[in-house]
Amino acid sequence: MSVDTTCISTIRTLAADVVAKSNSGHPGAPMGMAPAAHVLFSQFLTANPSNSKWFNRDRFVLSNGHACVLQYTMLHLLGYKISMDDLKLFRQLDSLTPGHPEANHTDGIEVTTGPLGQGFANGVGLAIASNHLAAVYNKPDFELLNNFTYVFCGDGCLMEGVSAEAASLAGHLQLGNLIVVYDDNHISIDGDTAIAFTEDVGARFLSYGWQVLHVENGDSDLDGINKALNEARAEKSKPTIIRLRTTIGFGSKEQGTHGVHGSPLKADDIVALKTKFGFPPDEKFYVPAEVYKFYGEIAQKGASAEAKWNSLLAAYGQKYPTEHAELTRRIAGELPQNWEKALPVYKPTDSAQASRKLSEIALTSLAAVLPDLLGGSADLTSSNLTKVKGSVDFQPPATKLGTYAGTYIRYGVREHGMGAIANGLAAYGGIIPFVGTFLNFVSYAAGAVRLSALSRVQVIWVGTHDSIGLGEVSCLSTTFGVTNELHSGPTHQPVETNAHFRAIPNLAFWRPADGNETSAAYSVALKSKHTPSILALSRQNLPNLEGSTIERASRGGYVLIEEEKEDLTIVSCGSEVTIAVEAAKKLKEQGIKTRVVSLPCWLVFDQQDAQYRLSVLRSGAPILSLEALSTLGWERYSHEQYGLTGWGASGPYQKVYEKLGITGANIAVVGKKVVDFYKQKGGEVVSPLVRAL
Amino acid sequence: MSVDTTCISTIRTLAADVVAKSNSGHPGAPMGMAPAAHVLFSQFLTANPSNSKWFNRDRFVLSNGHACVLQYTMLHLLGYKISMDDLKLFRQLDSLTPGHPEANHTDGIEVTTGPLGQGFANGVGLAIASNHLAAVYNKPDFELLNNFTYVFCGDGCLMEGVSAEAASLAGHLQLGNLIVVYDDNHISIDGDTAIAFTEDVGARFLSYGWQVLHVENGDSDLDGINKALNEARAEKSKPTIIRLRTTIGFGSKEQGTHGVHGSPLKADDIVALKTKFGFPPDEKFYVPAEVYKFYGEIAQKGASAEAKWNSLLAAYGQKYPTEHAELTRRIAGELPQNWEKALPVYKPTDSAQASRKLSEIALTSLAAVLPDLLGGSADLTSSNLTKVKGSVDFQPPATKLGTYAGTYIRYGVREHGMGAIANGLAAYGGIIPFVGTFLNFVSYAAGAVRLSALSRVQVIWVGTHDSIGLGEVSCLSTTFGVTNELHSGPTHQPVETNAHFRAIPNLAFWRPADGNETSAAYSVALKSKHTPSILALSRQNLPNLEGSTIERASRGGYVLIEEEKEDLTIVSCGSEVTIAVEAAKKLKEQGIKTRVVSLPCWLVFDQQDAQYRLSVLRSGAPILSLEALSTLGWERYSHEQYGLTGWGASGPYQKVYEKLGITGANIAVVGKKVVDFYKQKGGEVVSPLVRAL
Repeated sequence: MSVDTTCISTIRTLAADVVAKSNSGHPGAPMGMAPAAHVLFSQFLTANPSNSKWFNRDRFVLSNGHACVLQYTMLHLLGYKISMDDLKLFRQLDSLTPGHPEANHTDGIEVTTGPLGQGFANGVGLAIASNHLAAVYNKPDFELLNNFTYVFCGDGCLMEGVSAEAASLAGHLQLGNLIVVYDDNHISIDGDTAIAFTEDVGARFLSYGWQVLHVENGDSDLDGINKALNEARAEKSKPTIIRLRTTIGFGSKEQGTHGVHGSPLKADDIVALKTKFGFPPDEKFYVPAEVYKFYGEIAQKGASAEAKWNSLLAAYGQKYPTEHAELTRRIAGELPQNWEKALPVYKPTDSAQASRKLSEIALTSLAAVLPDLLGGSADLTSSNLTKVKGSVDFQPPATKLGTYAGTYIRYGVREHGMGAIANGLAAYGGIIPFVGTFLNFVSYAAGAVRLSALSRVQVIWVGTHDSIGLGEVSCLSTTFGVTNELHSGPTHQPVETNAHFRAIPNLAFWRPADGNETSAAYSVALKSKHTPSILALSRQNLPNLEGSTIERASRGGYVLIEEEKEDLTIVSCGSEVTIAVEAAKKLKEQGIKTRVVSLPCWLVFDQQDAQYRLSVLRSGAPILSLEALSTLGWERYSHEQYGLTGWGASGPYQKVYEKLGITGANIAVVGKKVVDFYKQKGGEVVSPLVRAL
Repeated sequence: MSVDTTCISTIRTLAADVVAKSNSGHPGAPMGMAPAAHVLFSQFLTANPSNSKWFNRDRFVLSNGHACVLQYTMLHLLGYKISMDDLKLFRQLDSLTPGHPEANHTDGIEVTTGPLGQGFANGVGLAIASNHLAAVYNKPDFELLNNFTYVFCGDGCLMEGVSAEAASLAGHLQLGNLIVVYDDNHISIDGDTAIAFTEDVGARFLSYGWQVLHVENGDSDLDGINKALNEARAEKSKPTIIRLRTTIGFGSKEQGTHGVHGSPLKADDIVALKTKFGFPPDEKFYVPAEVYKFYGEIAQKGASAEAKWNSLLAAYGQKYPTEHAELTRRIAGELPQNWEKALPVYKPTDSAQASRKLSEIALTSLAAVLPDLLGGSADLTSSNLTKVKGSVDFQPPATKLGTYAGTYIRYGVREHGMGAIANGLAAYGGIIPFVGTFLNFVSYAAGAVRLSALSRVQVIWVGTHDSIGLGEVSCLSTTFGVTNELHSGPTHQPVETNAHFRAIPNLAFWRPADGNETSAAYSVALKSKHTPSILALSRQNLPNLEGSTIERASRGGYVLIEEEKEDLTIVSCGSEVTIAVEAAKKLKEQGIKTRVVSLPCWLVFDQQDAQYRLSVLRSGAPILSLEALSTLGWERYSHEQYGLTGWGASGPYQKVYEKLGITGANIAVVGKKVVDFYKQKGGEVVSPLVRAL
């Protein structure tokens, strides 16, 4: 038996044993893709198992994350920090080997996968990141960055729209460093793919501008796999997909059926499998010594590669000290000194501006000191105002539309793909991605957004047109000098979006009320290396508020208008804070003392100490919340809520606000009603923050 | 000037005038697609403007909904209930002509579009519905249903993953009655499509199995358009996409640029446009008499077609009275008499079952009396348990895998496409679609789900694996007799999903606790003709509760365990109700009288009268909520909340519940803490439902 065959048999039997031990998991794809994994990891993938974070490593993504036993097994055999005991704890509570691969949790896992299609799109992001940083930092004789991104995926990943979006963009961007191995095993959960997936995948990828290769016998044709991977690497101006025909659950009695997709093999099947492979039939978790030795040598090669690279980097530092300092800072994930000075600061006398415009001003200022920023929009650039003036597009040089050193990505109308690509950009390191669309259409990318938060990567969403105030009057785009894309009506107006994103753990949802709050949102978002942020920004102009500062807003919530012995507090955020201030003024004229609290980010506010929070939302008078979106969840911070109870409406924004009662005049009436109600009710009014739990 | 040319010039100038009047909107695509719209509506589309609901009409979908001025103009000229005054109120508050087309709002609008890609996928649903009902009800000599679905779309729609998913499935399903006209105008909002969308669209659709046609001069080659549409109709076993090369904003000085995409034409440009077309340059909203006459004759033809069809239907009734009765009932959107008797009823002594299994039992029983049900799953059939035993797949007969009369759709791993297709199925009429995936992955379809609710169509989502209780132990699928797909870990565990969907207006999010509650969810969902529902169902077994009935649960919330002068009420839903009952029992043993309220559906509960609601969640003692998901929003119904504060975890479900404290024992401890806290606090404990607003 050749060592290659022994290795592959080891991977297959380990996969069967690990899934059987946990009595849960997917043995089929790992057994089917074992040969491809072996060839890739032993002959192509350059990485250092003893330092999984080496920056110029090749990236590997298992987009069909349910096959993670394959990845865990490879990482274990290569010497990453996954022991045999960890493998035996597969899918157990708090283990390093959860049911799907989790980045920032298990050594060697680049991105969190499992939700289908995400890993594929993450891979596009990784490949973009590599091309970008190479274009920025490589110099003649210093090819510091030249790594490949390899993605394994199954038919499920290719059925998902998110991968279709990412694949089309990857073709356009001519990402020659992206190589996808498609496990064409003809089996999905419902049975043969003939029941739902009969498209010509190869032809589809050709239409996207990819190189398409094919290996007919993925079960044992190691030379064929090697040849395909070599061809893929040789094609410098196209991403490659290799259609690898495999047999799911290869070696099992049930191979080639969906019976081996998501269930452990039966005990007698495993015995038969091992016998067939010439392995001790009753020994579990068997790894021949030569297999550890073989992969140990591969790992050694990786360590040498890193050592060589470190020397190259040091020499680079001699010749290009500025670039070296910047690159190593970015690799370390640190922000440059004094970057915060670039945050715009506003006075109440400064002119009113839309917060999307304030965002543009902040980004323009920040981009000058933060080359880490790599922005883009899903074809709404002139609406989102995400393009920094003078910035170059990230485009293949051949198109003459930009360069790979460009810092602005034209994502096309592909929100979900964009979100998942941004997760890949962030996971690569050295890059802080920001992406733009209408707030309402961040929902299209919900699958990617929750994975940003779960996998703790820093992505900043610029979600403009953040409420019913979409307006109907044209405005001039500063970027293009042409009139702007405008929308209106409930199809484009978010309602549930605030509740949706506020309920996601580790996601900072910001609705800044003015210039300083917008700067605060950027400040906190940029400092949060492990928390994604969504900045919900207005289309309509917002005055700069008396009392707002970057520092105060950076606490997530603060008292904007203070009153002794108040009758009422109005808590609000975003464009409605101005309306709250107006209402408070009207109420004061009636002798009703009204405080106003601005609460731009719940996640950040909740992280403040209890004393501070209780000083902001204090007991003694009723608290009324105001937001031109769903009221759901505001009960946490207020006694009474005012907001949308249904959909928005199509019309000029002032009229829409009037129709829905979100005006200073009406909120004053509502506020009076609240005050009267609590007076009549009697008793102490206790802050909603005072809780037993 | 030929009448065709006059008509087209009328459409173009009207579009320019309407957008200019509202000072908002998109003139470019309407002006570019005017010839295609004219040829389609005058030479092909069979419909009756005086009865827009005639069942065998051809369906028209404007997937690029921002171009709705085109649709409103056509509907006006043809005599639908859109007057010239309505056109002049374009994008104004409460008008019949909102910023994007809204179904169930404007006469002749089939589906709500604007969010890109949705209309395309809705069209696939409409075409499926037509094929399905034709296969079920057509008889020799009675071709009752033979209508086409025509979809207009732009490049934005084709960049979106949702349309890619739907297109792949449409090709697989060989939908010969689906014809898409792709406005290939090379312009997106960010500029020329060359910056982001360079794939070969034709080749892509060929790879999906579509017929691809091309009209090079969409601006004036009416014969070419006619020929392509005829070819499309002739191809019976493939959907067709016609790539129509047009000039955006044709006739404007800025034609062919993104300057005409989303902004009104300038006044002098409109004058020049009219002059060029030989129209009175200063007359606004000008419609030559011959144009009204021309379209009036088309409308007459449509009325005759319906009259003829009505005769055919009457004759069909003579020959096939049973089918006739069933079809006309379905067209009327009525449920059959006594259908509710098919709802399963449970006793506490009945064995514990997973609510996904209870759902399967309900569907199996209901399908026997409700042929309206057309189900499916995104490749999780054996997990969602959505396939009724013995049901036939909806498949092209040529595949020999099923027939068009089949009632089960294999959607593939395409959640967003599935959701948007289901919206189309529901919009067609005569069909009640239900679709399955893991609850967590309904989020992938968020864009379609909110449009179900906004456009008031009846879609039922079967969202299984609805919390951290995903389990790790294999179970046998009753449907296939093979072991089941299982997942675990936070990538597949919903957390924010409950808050997300509860915040969407007109969406019923159900988490039934047992058999009777599952039946109640189906009962209310089936009766709600204009409200979509999501049924969040468990993977783990749930005992049948003492005190639950279909009637009680149908009110959305009810008292499950009553106590006089209680110390505590626990309000819960879904799989946690059993845990609440257990905690209540433990608390009672300690002398703490605890009521338990089951609240399976907030939307429905909120619709009950105030007195009832206050009797369920009454004042006098603290209320503690319990749900193994985000607590966000539960503050509306409780004083204290227990649930997830972060992500789930990978592991056996009992251990995950224990780790997170969601056990009867821990909730009893928590409940005691709550009771003590409120005793110490003193004063009356007022129901959270008692509000000023």
